Amino acid sequence: MAYRPQLTQASRPATFPVTATDETGNQVEVEIAGEHPLTLYLDKHEIVTLMTLGAAPEALIVGYLRNQRLVNNLEEIAAVQVDWETEAAAVTTRHGVENLDRRLEKRTVTSGCGQGTMFGDLMEEVGHLHLPDDAELTEATMYALLDNLRRYDTLYKRAGALHSCALAKGSDILYHIEDVGRHNAVDAIAGMMWLDSVDGADKIFYTTGRLTSEMVIKAAQMGIPFIVSRSGITQMGYQVAQQVGITLIGRAKGSHYLLFTGQQRFRK
Amino acid sequence: MAYRPQLTQASRPATFPVTATDETGNQVEVEIAGEHPLTLYLDKHEIVTLMTLGAAPEALIVGYLRNQRLVNNLEEIAAVQVDWETEAAAVTTRHGVENLDRRLEKRTVTSGCGQGTMFGDLMEEVGHLHLPDDAELTEATMYALLDNLRRYDTLYKRAGALHSCALAKGSDILYHIEDVGRHNAVDAIAGMMWLDSVDGADKIFYTTGRLTSEMVIKAAQMGIPFIVSRSGITQMGYQVAQQVGITLIGRAKGSHYLLFTGQQRFRK
Repeated sequence: MAYRPQLTQASRPATFPVTATDETGNQVEVEIAGEHPLTLYLDKHEIVTLMTLGAAPEALIVGYLRNQRLVNNLEEIAAVQVDWETEAAAVTTRHGVENLDRRLEKRTVTSGCGQGTMFGDLMEEVGHLHLPDDAELTEATMYALLDNLRRYDTLYKRAGALHSCALAKGSDILYHIEDVGRHNAVDAIAGMMWLDSVDGADKIFYTTGRLTSEMVIKAAQMGIPFIVSRSGITQMGYQVAQQVGITLIGRAKGSHYLLFTGQQRFRK
Repeated sequence: MAYRPQLTQASRPATFPVTATDETGNQVEVEIAGEHPLTLYLDKHEIVTLMTLGAAPEALIVGYLRNQRLVNNLEEIAAVQVDWETEAAAVTTRHGVENLDRRLEKRTVTSGCGQGTMFGDLMEEVGHLHLPDDAELTEATMYALLDNLRRYDTLYKRAGALHSCALAKGSDILYHIEDVGRHNAVDAIAGMMWLDSVDGADKIFYTTGRLTSEMVIKAAQMGIPFIVSRSGITQMGYQVAQQVGITLIGRAKGSHYLLFTGQQRFRK
Protein backbone atom coordinates (compact mmCIF):
# COMPACT_ATOMS: atom_id res chain seq x y z
CA MET A 1 0.00 0.00 0.00
CA ALA A 2 1.15 3.52 -0.78
CA TYR A 3 2.60 5.57 2.05
CA ARG A 4 0.26 8.16 3.60
CA PRO A 5 1.24 10.83 6.10
CA GLN A 6 -0.99 11.25 9.12
CA LEU A 7 -3.74 13.61 7.91
CA THR A 8 -6.66 15.45 9.43
CA GLN A 9 -9.91 15.57 7.44
CA ALA A 10 -10.76 19.19 8.05
CA SER A 11 -12.77 20.31 5.04
CA ARG A 12 -14.97 23.38 5.36
CA PRO A 13 -18.48 23.90 3.97
CA ALA A 14 -18.16 25.14 0.39
CA THR A 15 -20.81 27.85 0.47
CA PHE A 16 -22.51 30.13 2.93
CA PRO A 17 -25.92 31.72 2.45
CA VAL A 18 -26.25 35.51 2.45
CA THR A 19 -29.13 37.80 1.61
CA ALA A 20 -28.81 40.16 -1.34
CA THR A 21 -31.16 42.47 -3.24
CA ASP A 22 -31.63 41.65 -6.90
CA GLU A 23 -32.56 43.93 -9.81
CA THR A 24 -36.27 43.46 -9.17
CA GLY A 25 -35.78 44.84 -5.66
CA ASN A 26 -36.46 41.46 -4.08
CA GLN A 27 -34.48 40.06 -1.19
CA VAL A 28 -32.94 36.81 -2.36
CA GLU A 29 -30.88 34.25 -0.51
CA VAL A 30 -27.73 33.43 -2.45
CA GLU A 31 -24.90 31.02 -1.78
CA ILE A 32 -21.44 32.56 -1.76
CA ALA A 33 -18.14 30.70 -1.81
CA GLY A 34 -16.21 30.22 1.41
CA GLU A 35 -12.81 31.89 1.70
CA HIS A 36 -10.61 31.12 4.67
CA PRO A 37 -7.03 32.02 5.54
CA LEU A 38 -4.90 28.97 6.22
CA THR A 39 -1.35 29.55 7.39
CA LEU A 40 1.16 26.83 6.60
CA TYR A 41 3.75 26.05 9.27
CA LEU A 42 6.49 23.72 8.06
CA ASP A 43 8.25 22.26 11.12
CA LYS A 44 7.02 25.36 12.97
CA HIS A 45 8.34 27.83 10.39
CA GLU A 46 5.63 30.08 8.98
CA ILE A 47 5.69 29.72 5.19
CA VAL A 48 2.58 31.17 3.58
CA THR A 49 -1.03 32.12 4.20
CA LEU A 50 -3.29 30.60 1.57
CA MET A 51 -6.79 31.97 1.04
CA THR A 52 -8.83 28.88 0.31
CA LEU A 53 -12.31 27.48 -0.05
CA GLY A 54 -11.12 24.74 2.28
CA ALA A 55 -12.62 21.78 0.45
CA ALA A 56 -9.45 19.67 0.64
CA PRO A 57 -7.00 21.56 2.83
CA GLU A 58 -4.64 18.64 3.54
CA ALA A 59 -4.24 17.85 -0.17
CA LEU A 60 -3.77 21.58 -0.84
CA ILE A 61 -0.97 21.80 1.70
CA VAL A 62 0.74 18.64 0.43
CA GLY A 63 0.43 19.87 -3.17
CA TYR A 64 1.73 23.32 -2.26
CA LEU A 65 4.84 21.78 -0.66
CA ARG A 66 5.26 19.59 -3.74
CA ASN A 67 4.79 22.32 -6.35
CA GLN A 68 6.98 24.81 -4.51
CA ARG A 69 9.66 22.10 -4.23
CA LEU A 70 9.83 22.50 -0.46
CA VAL A 71 9.44 18.75 0.01
CA ASN A 72 10.74 16.29 -2.58
CA ASN A 73 9.15 13.05 -1.42
CA LEU A 74 5.79 12.36 0.17
CA GLU A 75 7.62 10.03 2.58
CA GLU A 76 9.33 13.07 4.07
CA ILE A 77 5.98 14.30 5.38
CA ALA A 78 5.06 12.69 8.70
CA ALA A 79 1.85 14.60 9.38
CA VAL A 80 -0.42 17.39 8.12
CA GLN A 81 -2.73 18.79 10.77
CA VAL A 82 -5.27 21.39 9.72
CA ASP A 83 -7.04 23.29 12.48
CA TRP A 84 -9.59 25.91 11.38
CA GLU A 85 -9.90 27.34 14.89
CA THR A 86 -6.35 28.64 14.67
CA GLU A 87 -6.43 28.85 10.83
CA ALA A 88 -3.25 26.80 10.80
CA ALA A 89 -1.89 23.82 8.88
CA ALA A 90 0.99 22.29 10.80
CA VAL A 91 3.27 20.07 8.76
CA THR A 92 5.81 17.84 10.45
CA THR A 93 8.61 16.38 8.36
CA ARG A 94 10.69 13.33 9.23
CA HIS A 95 14.13 14.90 8.92
CA GLY A 96 13.51 18.63 8.56
CA VAL A 97 13.85 20.60 5.34
CA GLU A 98 17.42 21.27 4.28
CA ASN A 99 18.40 24.92 4.04
CA LEU A 100 14.84 26.05 4.76
CA ASP A 101 15.92 29.44 6.08
CA ARG A 102 18.09 30.12 3.08
CA ARG A 103 15.40 28.97 0.68
CA LEU A 104 12.76 31.15 2.27
CA GLU A 105 15.11 34.10 2.24
CA LYS A 106 15.73 33.95 -1.46
CA ARG A 107 12.13 33.47 -2.43
CA THR A 108 10.70 35.95 -4.85
CA VAL A 109 7.06 36.74 -4.59
CA THR A 110 5.46 36.58 -7.99
CA SER A 111 2.11 37.80 -8.98
CA GLY A 112 -0.28 38.28 -11.83
CA CYS A 113 -3.04 36.49 -10.08
CA GLY A 114 -0.20 34.11 -9.31
CA GLN A 115 0.27 32.51 -5.99
CA GLY A 116 3.76 31.98 -6.74
CA THR A 117 6.78 32.04 -4.67
CA MET A 118 9.99 30.75 -6.16
CA PHE A 119 8.96 31.35 -9.70
CA GLY A 120 12.53 31.82 -10.85
CA ASP A 121 13.50 28.36 -9.64
CA LEU A 122 10.48 26.85 -11.38
CA MET A 123 11.41 28.47 -14.66
CA GLU A 124 14.88 26.96 -14.40
CA GLU A 125 13.29 23.56 -14.00
CA VAL A 126 11.28 23.90 -17.19
CA GLY A 127 14.30 23.05 -19.31
CA HIS A 128 14.66 19.67 -17.57
CA LEU A 129 11.08 18.50 -17.78
CA HIS A 130 10.20 15.77 -20.21
CA LEU A 131 6.65 14.73 -21.07
CA PRO A 132 5.75 11.38 -22.66
CA ASP A 133 5.65 11.43 -26.45
CA ASP A 134 3.39 8.43 -26.88
CA ALA A 135 0.37 9.78 -24.99
CA GLU A 136 -2.63 10.47 -27.20
CA LEU A 137 -5.91 12.34 -26.89
CA THR A 138 -8.68 12.16 -29.44
CA GLU A 139 -11.22 14.89 -30.07
CA ALA A 140 -14.05 12.48 -29.19
CA THR A 141 -12.47 11.72 -25.81
CA MET A 142 -12.00 15.41 -25.09
CA TYR A 143 -15.64 16.15 -25.93
CA ALA A 144 -16.75 13.27 -23.69
CA LEU A 145 -14.59 14.69 -20.87
CA LEU A 146 -16.08 18.18 -21.30
CA ASP A 147 -19.49 16.56 -21.16
CA ASN A 148 -18.65 14.75 -17.92
CA LEU A 149 -17.27 17.93 -16.41
CA ARG A 150 -20.63 19.63 -16.87
CA ARG A 151 -22.06 17.56 -14.02
CA TYR A 152 -19.51 19.08 -11.65
CA ASP A 153 -20.28 22.66 -12.53
CA THR A 154 -22.96 23.24 -9.95
CA LEU A 155 -20.96 24.98 -7.21
CA TYR A 156 -19.03 27.08 -9.70
CA LYS A 157 -22.30 28.19 -11.27
CA ARG A 158 -24.11 28.67 -7.97
CA ALA A 159 -21.49 30.68 -6.12
CA GLY A 160 -19.65 32.18 -9.07
CA ALA A 161 -16.37 33.12 -7.43
CA LEU A 162 -14.48 29.92 -7.94
CA HIS A 163 -12.10 28.15 -10.21
CA SER A 164 -12.23 24.43 -10.75
CA CYS A 165 -9.61 21.94 -11.80
CA ALA A 166 -9.85 18.29 -12.65
CA LEU A 167 -7.57 15.37 -13.35
CA ALA A 168 -8.90 12.90 -15.90
CA LYS A 169 -7.85 9.67 -17.53
CA GLY A 170 -9.53 9.72 -20.91
CA SER A 171 -13.02 11.01 -20.23
CA ASP A 172 -13.05 9.66 -16.65
CA ILE A 173 -12.68 12.29 -13.96
CA LEU A 174 -10.38 11.09 -11.17
CA TYR A 175 -10.33 14.28 -9.11
CA HIS A 176 -12.33 17.47 -9.25
CA ILE A 177 -11.58 20.38 -6.95
CA GLU A 178 -12.82 23.94 -6.64
CA ASP A 179 -11.14 26.83 -4.91
CA VAL A 180 -11.15 30.61 -4.77
CA GLY A 181 -7.79 30.62 -6.56
CA ARG A 182 -6.59 28.85 -9.66
CA HIS A 183 -3.33 27.96 -7.98
CA ASN A 184 -4.90 26.41 -4.93
CA ALA A 185 -7.04 24.19 -7.14
CA VAL A 186 -4.05 22.89 -9.11
CA ASP A 187 -1.98 22.48 -5.94
CA ALA A 188 -4.75 20.41 -4.36
CA ILE A 189 -4.78 18.15 -7.44
CA ALA A 190 -0.99 17.77 -7.13
CA GLY A 191 -1.43 16.83 -3.47
CA MET A 192 -4.09 14.22 -4.24
CA MET A 193 -1.87 12.70 -6.93
CA TRP A 194 1.01 12.38 -4.47
CA LEU A 195 -1.16 10.98 -1.70
CA ASP A 196 -2.64 8.35 -4.02
CA SER A 197 0.58 7.67 -5.99
CA VAL A 198 -1.07 8.71 -9.24
CA ASP A 199 1.23 9.29 -12.18
CA GLY A 200 0.56 12.13 -14.63
CA ALA A 201 1.89 10.51 -17.80
CA ASP A 202 -1.47 9.27 -19.14
CA LYS A 203 -3.66 11.99 -17.63
CA ILE A 204 -5.40 15.19 -18.72
CA PHE A 205 -5.38 18.31 -16.59
CA TYR A 206 -8.51 20.46 -16.92
CA THR A 207 -8.97 23.96 -15.52
CA THR A 208 -11.61 26.66 -15.84
CA GLY A 209 -8.84 29.21 -15.32
CA ARG A 210 -6.56 31.07 -17.65
CA LEU A 211 -3.38 29.41 -18.81
CA THR A 212 -0.68 31.69 -17.48
CA SER A 213 2.93 30.54 -17.37
CA GLU A 214 2.68 29.26 -13.81
CA MET A 215 -0.29 27.02 -14.59
CA VAL A 216 1.49 25.42 -17.52
CA ILE A 217 4.66 24.92 -15.47
CA LYS A 218 2.73 23.23 -12.67
CA ALA A 219 0.98 20.79 -15.02
CA ALA A 220 4.31 19.98 -16.67
CA GLN A 221 5.93 19.45 -13.26
CA MET A 222 3.25 16.87 -12.49
CA GLY A 223 4.25 15.09 -15.70
CA ILE A 224 0.85 15.62 -17.34
CA PRO A 225 1.08 15.85 -21.16
CA PHE A 226 -2.39 17.43 -21.73
CA ILE A 227 -3.92 20.68 -20.51
CA VAL A 228 -7.48 21.62 -21.42
CA SER A 229 -8.91 24.97 -20.34
CA ARG A 230 -12.19 26.75 -20.77
CA SER A 231 -10.28 30.05 -20.80
CA GLY A 232 -7.60 31.65 -22.91
CA ILE A 233 -3.83 31.54 -22.76
CA THR A 234 -1.17 34.17 -22.19
CA GLN A 235 1.94 34.66 -24.23
CA MET A 236 4.23 33.22 -21.54
CA GLY A 237 1.87 30.30 -21.00
CA TYR A 238 2.20 29.63 -24.73
CA GLN A 239 5.99 29.95 -24.68
CA VAL A 240 6.37 27.58 -21.73
CA ALA A 241 3.97 25.12 -23.39
CA GLN A 242 6.11 25.14 -26.54
CA GLN A 243 9.29 24.76 -24.55
CA VAL A 244 8.14 21.72 -22.54
CA GLY A 245 6.19 20.30 -25.50
CA ILE A 246 2.91 19.99 -23.62
CA THR A 247 -0.34 19.58 -25.57
CA LEU A 248 -2.38 22.65 -24.76
CA ILE A 249 -6.02 23.22 -25.68
CA GLY A 250 -7.73 26.49 -24.74
CA ARG A 251 -11.19 27.99 -25.10
CA ALA A 252 -12.70 24.51 -24.79
CA LYS A 253 -16.41 25.16 -24.39
CA GLY A 254 -19.33 23.48 -26.06
CA SER A 255 -18.03 22.18 -29.37
CA HIS A 256 -15.36 24.86 -29.69
CA TYR A 257 -11.69 24.66 -28.86
CA LEU A 258 -8.30 25.95 -29.94
CA LEU A 259 -5.34 23.58 -30.06
CA PHE A 260 -2.29 25.75 -29.38
CA THR A 261 0.71 23.46 -28.91
CA GLY A 262 1.73 19.79 -28.89
CA GLN A 263 -0.42 18.95 -31.94
CA GLN A 264 1.33 15.58 -32.35
CA ARG A 265 -0.54 14.06 -29.38
CA PHE A 266 -3.99 15.13 -30.54
CA ARG A 267 -6.14 13.20 -33.06
CA LYS A 268 -9.27 14.56 -34.67
CA MET B 1 0.19 71.26 -10.65
CA ALA B 2 0.26 67.87 -8.97
CA TYR B 3 3.63 66.31 -8.25
CA ARG B 4 4.79 63.62 -10.65
CA PRO B 5 7.79 61.37 -10.21
CA GLN B 6 10.07 60.93 -13.19
CA LEU B 7 8.46 58.11 -15.18
CA THR B 8 9.33 56.03 -18.21
CA GLN B 9 6.53 55.26 -20.69
CA ALA B 10 7.36 51.66 -21.30
CA SER B 11 4.08 49.96 -22.16
CA ARG B 12 4.18 46.67 -24.01
CA PRO B 13 1.93 45.53 -26.89
CA ALA B 14 -1.20 44.02 -25.38
CA THR B 15 -1.52 40.99 -27.63
CA PHE B 16 0.62 38.74 -29.74
CA PRO B 17 -0.58 36.66 -32.68
CA VAL B 18 -0.14 32.88 -32.60
CA THR B 19 -1.45 30.16 -34.85
CA ALA B 20 -3.82 27.56 -33.43
CA THR B 21 -5.97 24.77 -34.84
CA ASP B 22 -9.71 25.13 -34.28
CA GLU B 23 -12.40 22.44 -34.05
CA THR B 24 -12.92 22.45 -37.83
CA GLY B 25 -9.26 21.52 -38.27
CA ASN B 26 -8.43 24.92 -39.73
CA GLN B 27 -5.32 26.88 -38.85
CA VAL B 28 -6.44 30.18 -37.37
CA GLU B 29 -4.45 33.17 -36.23
CA VAL B 30 -5.50 34.23 -32.74
CA GLU B 31 -4.39 37.08 -30.54
CA ILE B 32 -3.18 36.04 -27.09
CA ALA B 33 -2.52 38.32 -24.13
CA GLY B 34 1.02 39.38 -23.32
CA GLU B 35 2.50 38.24 -20.01
CA HIS B 36 5.85 39.58 -18.88
CA PRO B 37 7.81 39.29 -15.66
CA LEU B 38 8.63 42.66 -14.15
CA THR B 39 10.85 42.69 -11.08
CA LEU B 40 10.44 45.64 -8.75
CA TYR B 41 13.60 47.03 -7.18
CA LEU B 42 12.93 49.60 -4.46
CA ASP B 43 16.12 51.59 -3.88
CA LYS B 44 17.96 48.54 -5.28
CA HIS B 45 16.21 46.04 -2.97
CA GLU B 46 14.41 43.29 -4.89
CA ILE B 47 10.79 43.30 -3.72
CA VAL B 48 8.58 41.26 -6.03
CA THR B 49 8.25 39.90 -9.54
CA LEU B 50 4.90 40.80 -11.06
CA MET B 51 3.61 38.91 -14.08
CA THR B 52 1.91 41.59 -16.12
CA LEU B 53 0.37 42.45 -19.47
CA GLY B 54 2.55 45.56 -19.31
CA ALA B 55 -0.03 48.08 -20.49
CA ALA B 56 0.76 50.62 -17.76
CA PRO B 57 3.82 49.31 -15.91
CA GLU B 58 4.76 52.60 -14.19
CA ALA B 59 1.25 53.06 -12.77
CA LEU B 60 1.26 49.39 -11.73
CA ILE B 61 4.51 49.81 -9.82
CA VAL B 62 3.35 53.03 -8.14
CA GLY B 63 0.02 51.42 -7.22
CA TYR B 64 1.73 48.30 -5.90
CA LEU B 65 3.91 50.40 -3.61
CA ARG B 66 0.81 52.30 -2.50
CA ASN B 67 -1.42 49.30 -1.87
CA GLN B 68 1.30 47.34 -0.10
CA ARG B 69 1.95 50.41 2.06
CA LEU B 70 5.63 50.41 1.14
CA VAL B 71 5.46 54.10 0.24
CA ASN B 72 3.03 56.44 1.99
CA ASN B 73 3.23 59.54 -0.22
CA LEU B 74 3.69 59.89 -3.94
CA GLU B 75 6.18 62.71 -3.20
CA GLU B 76 8.49 60.10 -1.69
CA ILE B 77 8.96 58.52 -5.13
CA ALA B 78 11.62 60.32 -7.17
CA ALA B 79 11.60 58.06 -10.23
CA VAL B 80 10.14 54.86 -11.70
CA GLN B 81 12.19 53.42 -14.54
CA VAL B 82 10.83 50.40 -16.37
CA ASP B 83 13.19 48.55 -18.67
CA TRP B 84 11.78 45.51 -20.46
CA GLU B 85 15.23 44.41 -21.68
CA THR B 86 16.20 43.61 -18.11
CA GLU B 87 12.57 43.00 -17.00
CA ALA B 88 13.16 45.47 -14.19
CA ALA B 89 11.32 48.40 -12.65
CA ALA B 90 13.75 50.51 -10.65
CA VAL B 91 12.16 52.81 -8.11
CA THR B 92 14.20 55.54 -6.45
CA THR B 93 12.81 57.16 -3.32
CA ARG B 94 13.83 60.54 -1.94
CA HIS B 95 14.72 59.43 1.56
CA GLY B 96 14.72 55.64 1.49
CA VAL B 97 12.03 53.40 2.99
CA GLU B 98 12.13 53.15 6.76
CA ASN B 99 12.69 49.67 8.15
CA LEU B 100 12.50 48.12 4.69
CA ASP B 101 14.54 45.06 5.65
CA ARG B 102 12.42 44.40 8.70
CA ARG B 103 9.20 44.93 6.76
CA LEU B 104 10.26 42.58 3.99
CA GLU B 105 11.33 40.00 6.53
CA LYS B 106 7.96 39.85 8.22
CA ARG B 107 5.93 39.72 5.05
CA THR B 108 3.59 36.83 4.68
CA VAL B 109 2.91 35.58 1.23
CA THR B 110 -0.78 35.16 0.71
CA SER B 111 -2.53 33.39 -2.04
CA GLY B 112 -5.84 32.30 -3.39
CA CYS B 113 -5.24 33.88 -6.71
CA GLY B 114 -4.02 36.68 -4.49
CA GLN B 115 -0.96 38.66 -5.21
CA GLY B 116 -0.77 39.69 -1.77
CA THR B 117 2.09 40.16 0.48
CA MET B 118 1.43 41.72 3.87
CA PHE B 119 -2.13 40.62 4.00
CA GLY B 120 -2.13 40.56 7.79
CA ASP B 121 -1.21 44.22 7.97
CA LEU B 122 -3.91 45.10 5.47
CA MET B 123 -6.53 43.29 7.53
CA GLU B 124 -5.50 45.29 10.59
CA GLU B 125 -6.07 48.45 8.61
CA VAL B 126 -9.61 47.50 7.71
CA GLY B 127 -10.87 48.56 11.11
CA HIS B 128 -9.59 52.09 10.60
CA LEU B 129 -10.99 52.73 7.14
CA HIS B 130 -13.92 55.05 6.76
CA LEU B 131 -15.89 55.53 3.56
CA PRO B 132 -18.11 58.53 2.82
CA ASP B 133 -21.74 58.08 3.87
CA ASP B 134 -23.21 60.68 1.53
CA ALA B 135 -22.08 59.13 -1.75
CA GLU B 136 -24.94 57.80 -3.84
CA LEU B 137 -25.33 55.52 -6.86
CA THR B 138 -28.59 55.07 -8.74
CA GLU B 139 -29.52 51.97 -10.67
CA ALA B 140 -29.83 54.04 -13.86
CA THR B 141 -26.27 55.35 -13.47
CA MET B 142 -24.95 51.86 -12.85
CA TYR B 143 -26.69 50.53 -15.98
CA ALA B 144 -25.27 53.44 -18.00
CA LEU B 145 -21.79 52.64 -16.66
CA LEU B 146 -22.13 48.94 -17.56
CA ASP B 147 -23.21 50.08 -21.02
CA ASN B 148 -20.14 52.31 -21.39
CA LEU B 149 -17.88 49.51 -20.20
CA ARG B 150 -19.03 47.32 -23.07
CA ARG B 151 -17.04 49.45 -25.49
CA TYR B 152 -13.85 48.55 -23.64
CA ASP B 153 -14.41 44.82 -23.76
CA THR B 154 -12.64 44.15 -27.02
CA LEU B 155 -9.23 43.01 -25.77
CA TYR B 156 -10.73 40.94 -22.97
CA LYS B 157 -13.00 39.23 -25.48
CA ARG B 158 -10.33 38.85 -28.13
CA ALA B 159 -7.55 37.43 -26.01
CA GLY B 160 -9.62 35.90 -23.22
CA ALA B 161 -7.01 35.60 -20.50
CA LEU B 162 -7.39 38.97 -18.88
CA HIS B 163 -9.11 40.82 -16.12
CA SER B 164 -10.16 44.39 -16.47
CA CYS B 165 -10.75 47.11 -13.92
CA ALA B 166 -12.14 50.59 -14.27
CA LEU B 167 -12.56 53.70 -12.18
CA ALA B 168 -15.69 55.69 -12.94
CA LYS B 169 -17.39 58.85 -11.79
CA GLY B 170 -21.05 58.23 -12.35
CA SER B 171 -21.22 56.54 -15.74
CA ASP B 172 -18.03 58.22 -16.99
CA ILE B 173 -15.01 55.95 -17.18
CA LEU B 174 -11.87 57.74 -15.96
CA TYR B 175 -9.47 54.81 -16.20
CA HIS B 176 -9.73 51.38 -17.73
CA ILE B 177 -6.95 48.86 -17.41
CA GLU B 178 -6.51 45.23 -18.31
CA ASP B 179 -3.98 42.79 -16.95
CA VAL B 180 -3.32 39.08 -16.62
CA GLY B 181 -4.05 39.35 -12.91
CA ARG B 182 -6.91 40.94 -11.00
CA HIS B 183 -4.50 42.44 -8.50
CA ASN B 184 -2.27 44.04 -11.07
CA ALA B 185 -5.29 45.72 -12.66
CA VAL B 186 -6.48 47.20 -9.36
CA ASP B 187 -2.94 48.23 -8.39
CA ALA B 188 -2.52 50.06 -11.71
CA ILE B 189 -5.76 51.97 -11.05
CA ALA B 190 -4.44 52.89 -7.59
CA GLY B 191 -1.22 54.12 -9.21
CA MET B 192 -3.07 56.24 -11.77
CA MET B 193 -5.20 57.78 -9.01
CA TRP B 194 -2.08 58.73 -7.06
CA LEU B 195 -0.26 60.11 -10.10
CA ASP B 196 -3.27 62.25 -11.07
CA SER B 197 -4.29 63.17 -7.48
CA VAL B 198 -7.71 61.59 -7.97
CA ASP B 199 -9.75 61.02 -4.83
CA GLY B 200 -11.88 57.88 -4.43
CA ALA B 201 -14.74 59.34 -2.40
CA ASP B 202 -17.13 59.96 -5.31
CA LYS B 203 -15.96 57.14 -7.55
CA ILE B 204 -17.03 53.64 -8.53
CA PHE B 205 -14.57 50.78 -8.83
CA TYR B 206 -15.48 48.20 -11.47
CA THR B 207 -13.82 44.83 -11.97
CA THR B 208 -14.50 41.79 -14.10
CA GLY B 209 -12.84 39.72 -11.38
CA ARG B 210 -14.14 37.94 -8.32
CA LEU B 211 -14.57 39.90 -5.13
CA THR B 212 -12.23 38.16 -2.75
CA SER B 213 -11.25 39.80 0.53
CA GLU B 214 -8.13 41.39 -0.91
CA MET B 215 -10.01 43.11 -3.72
CA VAL B 216 -12.51 44.63 -1.31
CA ILE B 217 -9.71 45.79 1.01
CA LYS B 218 -7.85 47.45 -1.84
CA ALA B 219 -10.92 49.38 -3.04
CA ALA B 220 -11.64 50.48 0.54
CA GLN B 221 -8.02 51.58 0.99
CA MET B 222 -8.42 53.81 -2.04
CA GLY B 223 -11.42 55.38 -0.31
CA ILE B 224 -13.88 54.22 -2.99
CA PRO B 225 -17.41 53.64 -1.60
CA PHE B 226 -18.72 51.53 -4.53
CA ILE B 227 -17.55 48.25 -6.02
CA VAL B 228 -19.31 46.74 -9.03
CA SER B 229 -18.22 43.36 -10.36
CA ARG B 230 -19.32 41.12 -13.16
CA SER B 231 -18.34 38.12 -11.01
CA GLY B 232 -19.37 36.70 -7.66
CA ILE B 233 -18.15 37.33 -4.16
CA THR B 234 -16.48 35.18 -1.55
CA GLN B 235 -17.46 34.92 2.08
CA MET B 236 -14.45 36.93 3.29
CA GLY B 237 -15.02 39.54 0.60
CA TYR B 238 -18.54 39.84 1.96
CA GLN B 239 -17.37 40.08 5.57
CA VAL B 240 -14.80 42.76 4.80
CA ALA B 241 -17.41 44.69 2.78
CA GLN B 242 -19.78 44.63 5.75
CA GLN B 243 -17.02 45.65 8.12
CA VAL B 244 -15.88 48.69 6.12
CA GLY B 245 -19.44 49.51 5.02
CA ILE B 246 -18.66 49.55 1.32
CA THR B 247 -21.49 49.31 -1.23
CA LEU B 248 -20.89 46.09 -3.07
CA ILE B 249 -22.70 44.92 -6.18
CA GLY B 250 -21.86 41.56 -7.74
CA ARG B 251 -22.97 39.58 -10.77
CA ALA B 252 -23.60 42.82 -12.65
CA LYS B 253 -24.15 41.70 -16.22
CA GLY B 254 -26.82 42.79 -18.66
CA SER B 255 -29.78 43.89 -16.57
CA HIS B 256 -28.95 41.60 -13.67
CA TYR B 257 -27.12 42.40 -10.46
CA LEU B 258 -27.00 41.48 -6.78
CA LEU B 259 -26.60 44.22 -4.19
CA PHE B 260 -24.78 42.59 -1.29
CA THR B 261 -23.80 45.31 1.18
CA GLY B 262 -24.01 49.06 1.75
CA GLN B 263 -27.63 49.29 0.54
CA GLN B 264 -27.99 52.82 1.99
CA ARG B 265 -25.92 54.34 -0.85
CA PHE B 266 -27.86 52.69 -3.65
CA ARG B 267 -31.13 54.02 -5.12
CA LYS B 268 -33.37 52.06 -7.45
